[in-house]
Amino acid sequence: MTVSKLLRERVKHIPYLSRVKEAHELVPLFQNGQYIGWSGFTGVGAPKAVPEAIAEHVEKNNLQGQLRFNLFVGASAGPEECRWAENDMIIRRAPHQVGKPIAKAINSGKINFFDKHLSMFPQDLTYGFYTKERTDGKILDYTIIEATAIKEDGSIVPGPAVGGSPEFLSVSDKIIVEVNTKTPSFQGLHDIDMPSLPPYRKPYPYCRVDDKSGLDAIPVDPDRVVAIVETHENDKVPPNTPSDEMSRAIASHLVEFFRHEVNQGRLPDNLLPLQSGIGNIANAVIEGLTDANFKHLNVWTEVLQDSFLDLFDNGSLDYATATSIRLTENGFDRVFSNWDNFKHKICLRSQVVSNNPEIIRRLGVIAMNTPVEVDIYAHANSTNVSGSRMLNGLGGSADFLRNAKLSIMHAPSARPTKVDPTGISTIVPMASHVDQTEHDLDIIVTDQGLADLRGMSPKERAHAIIDNCAHPDYRDLLNDYLSQSEHYAAKHGCLHEPHMLRNALKFHTNLAEKGTMKVDSWDIVD
Amino acid sequence: MTVSKLLRERVKHIPYLSRVKEAHELVPLFQNGQYIGWSGFTGVGAPKAVPEAIAEHVEKNNLQGQLRFNLFVGASAGPEECRWAENDMIIRRAPHQVGKPIAKAINSGKINFFDKHLSMFPQDLTYGFYTKERTDGKILDYTIIEATAIKEDGSIVPGPAVGGSPEFLSVSDKIIVEVNTKTPSFQGLHDIDMPSLPPYRKPYPYCRVDDKSGLDAIPVDPDRVVAIVETHENDKVPPNTPSDEMSRAIASHLVEFFRHEVNQGRLPDNLLPLQSGIGNIANAVIEGLTDANFKHLNVWTEVLQDSFLDLFDNGSLDYATATSIRLTENGFDRVFSNWDNFKHKICLRSQVVSNNPEIIRRLGVIAMNTPVEVDIYAHANSTNVSGSRMLNGLGGSADFLRNAKLSIMHAPSARPTKVDPTGISTIVPMASHVDQTEHDLDIIVTDQGLADLRGMSPKERAHAIIDNCAHPDYRDLLNDYLSQSEHYAAKHGCLHEPHMLRNALKFHTNLAEKGTMKVDSWDIVD
Repeated sequence: MTVSKLLRERVKHIPYLSRVKEAHELVPLFQNGQYIGWSGFTGVGAPKAVPEAIAEHVEKNNLQGQLRFNLFVGASAGPEECRWAENDMIIRRAPHQVGKPIAKAINSGKINFFDKHLSMFPQDLTYGFYTKERTDGKILDYTIIEATAIKEDGSIVPGPAVGGSPEFLSVSDKIIVEVNTKTPSFQGLHDIDMPSLPPYRKPYPYCRVDDKSGLDAIPVDPDRVVAIVETHENDKVPPNTPSDEMSRAIASHLVEFFRHEVNQGRLPDNLLPLQSGIGNIANAVIEGLTDANFKHLNVWTEVLQDSFLDLFDNGSLDYATATSIRLTENGFDRVFSNWDNFKHKICLRSQVVSNNPEIIRRLGVIAMNTPVEVDIYAHANSTNVSGSRMLNGLGGSADFLRNAKLSIMHAPSARPTKVDPTGISTIVPMASHVDQTEHDLDIIVTDQGLADLRGMSPKERAHAIIDNCAHPDYRDLLNDYLSQSEHYAAKHGCLHEPHMLRNALKFHTNLAEKGTMKVDSWDIVD
Repeated sequence: MTVSKLLRERVKHIPYLSRVKEAHELVPLFQNGQYIGWSGFTGVGAPKAVPEAIAEHVEKNNLQGQLRFNLFVGASAGPEECRWAENDMIIRRAPHQVGKPIAKAINSGKINFFDKHLSMFPQDLTYGFYTKERTDGKILDYTIIEATAIKEDGSIVPGPAVGGSPEFLSVSDKIIVEVNTKTPSFQGLHDIDMPSLPPYRKPYPYCRVDDKSGLDAIPVDPDRVVAIVETHENDKVPPNTPSDEMSRAIASHLVEFFRHEVNQGRLPDNLLPLQSGIGNIANAVIEGLTDANFKHLNVWTEVLQDSFLDLFDNGSLDYATATSIRLTENGFDRVFSNWDNFKHKICLRSQVVSNNPEIIRRLGVIAMNTPVEVDIYAHANSTNVSGSRMLNGLGGSADFLRNAKLSIMHAPSARPTKVDPTGISTIVPMASHVDQTEHDLDIIVTDQGLADLRGMSPKERAHAIIDNCAHPDYRDLLNDYLSQSEHYAAKHGCLHEPHMLRNALKFHTNLAEKGTMKVDSWDIVD
């Protein structure tokens, strides 16, 4: 078929040009039960045309529930995956996902979803751990990857996400490349580490956020690339929620804490490399740092969002590295209009590297993430509402919080339900699901204040969290839970981490029954 | 004072010889409220004479509760620490501990105990995280370290444990060295990494279990060494519990699994470096490997026990490294009578290195540990019985299980209570405390069988764990919990990880009330 001028400019490996196809021509390659990898991370850099074509095929031929795949994406893909979920095209899915239809299919039992630390997921896939039931020795049948350019040797230059693509490509029987000619080429922005397996693995040499390996594209065996598809559609990232009083309060507690740590000599003047999660509060914290006059900050994180651009613009931020750059259209315009500047200040790596315990710990990263809930002893739930209902997934929260020098969780102290404006307390007696343990968290901060838990025993932590972080509507209830638990535990010789198990999840059962965590009283225990 | 000939042979740094003291002379140095570091790890290599002398002083002068210390030990010390606990001499203690009087003091609220991953604890101490309330800028007032020799430059050759000593010594205002002249010198058995702080930290260069840095003693500033005390007393490690039918069943399931993984190409013929916890089952597993005819095995673990000597002796094991070598008297005799052989096959490192996520992950370690309980979705409790009562602590379980290539937990399927020979089920609906999350564990194995959870969704895991691992007395109860939870979750759109929170901890409340986890029925939930 005819190859567009734009595509010819991007694809420098000539043999690929004879493999250019329209997406719909590839539909017959996809068979029920296959194992498929997609590029993409946090809604950017995912394939578009081929997933859409397969979904269209399913819709036209009423194949819902009959053409289903085991789908692996670094983290969340774009709206194409929602369409797959709506058409019951997903048997099994890992890891982190975003999109109401996907969560709905998981929570209705249609998708077998499993969740893994994002630094480990691609590695465990290459180990064959997720395909051990296959008898043909293959891992992935197809990887569909979005590229913004292809080099002379056939290696692939990703777009705004590296994610799990290096690992997927290394274990994929066949590869389909969607070359996005709408997005400018991202060549020069990536630094690629290809997987190596034990016992032959070497240290990652990175000792600074701007250290690079020198590989600016993902090497592939060109013979495995069976098709090139041109696409011409931008990623669509919704605008960020503006900060509000609650999120600004959190940011201000954190900035004050950072200043204190600098004064005490426990952090250098330019702090240490920052990691910041996605969302409202994370954005407000970065905003808060923009106003705080720190200089020469560095970022070692999973995802870069628009707020980091402001940190660059006001001269606070020297360098930022991540596995995905998830910007709004306006954000991408800012980067591309100043490309020669940003390409020396931003680097995208694989998620195995961006989230790697080895490097996070070496650099002494300051990690900040938002939980669903935190209990009085500092166990946090990042994934399952009331223990059962999956939101988006674990993401990199535990990669960072376990290994950071400072592990921080930030959240509003209370959230509304239909019947009570403060019906949900972030601080609960016992987390209904634990993703971060009490051994992992140093600092809890809400709009109410900050609890510095370092070196504290569980009972000391409970007092600090209730007094500093709990919403006033819940403080008495929580203090009462704690003192009744202490009374019970003193009698039974278990005062290390006092609980009344009969009441431990009562905030949650009360919420299910009455729409609020405000329990009338604690059941009596002896 | 007179310096014995034995001591003179061990202490090569001449200026130290003028600082030789009797332990009781040092008692006045110790003041209420001080921060003290001890060497020692899993009951070996801890200081003996000085702690005893201080305890004696307390007992003689009825100073119980008046001369109290903040005590930091790499992991558990010896019987001297029990005596401190009995005399109420400990204000605060971290991390892992062993000894009934210590656990009793923790669980009665006398000791403020906090627990941290053993790889992180010494590092966080050097950061000043555990002493942030001090106004004098100091971290430790004294470190008391057991040595088996001192080199010409004043650097300290530890005994059977390195533990947290390098970090303690680096942040200690003053140092007291107990030179144990009863134990032979361990010089040549250690490999020492001294701490470096972010942003100046470099990669650990170790790519094989036998890679070494070249430093065979812990460097210190000799001016800070205020006293040398000669001691002449062995560590006393109790004999290991012999394997029984239960533990041999677990070992046999595991050996079968390893063979399967080798056959599938997911492990090399000599497996990958092994980590094995302490205790009955861990010993049986190593025994099982001794009989399994694997060759060229390697060990990267936290603690070496006697069972590893058999693995060496039958030619299965090439090299073993740990932070502590916790042998019985007979075991130490075996090592010392064959020293020239073993010194090339064993290496002791700091616990920051032995338990470091960076190296555990790079090497692809196979990690095996024993939990208190595991729930149907594969969250494990390693520390707190029924959520509250501290046993020994987290130890290195999470360092290894989070970062290993294969993360394995092994336990008996049921344990007895006073009223029911199978009154406690290891498999529970919801763990009453979570130290290892569902994202961390690959394999659960009990005497009943093995559940391979890799790539499974939570519901699939639950079936695998109940069917393969639960004791038959509990299978119906657990299956009933699962199916009733699924029924509830289907109605409420939370089928990812179904629970009935009202019943989730009923195994535990039933145990507290009736001495068995065998509940009569599940409460009805809608």
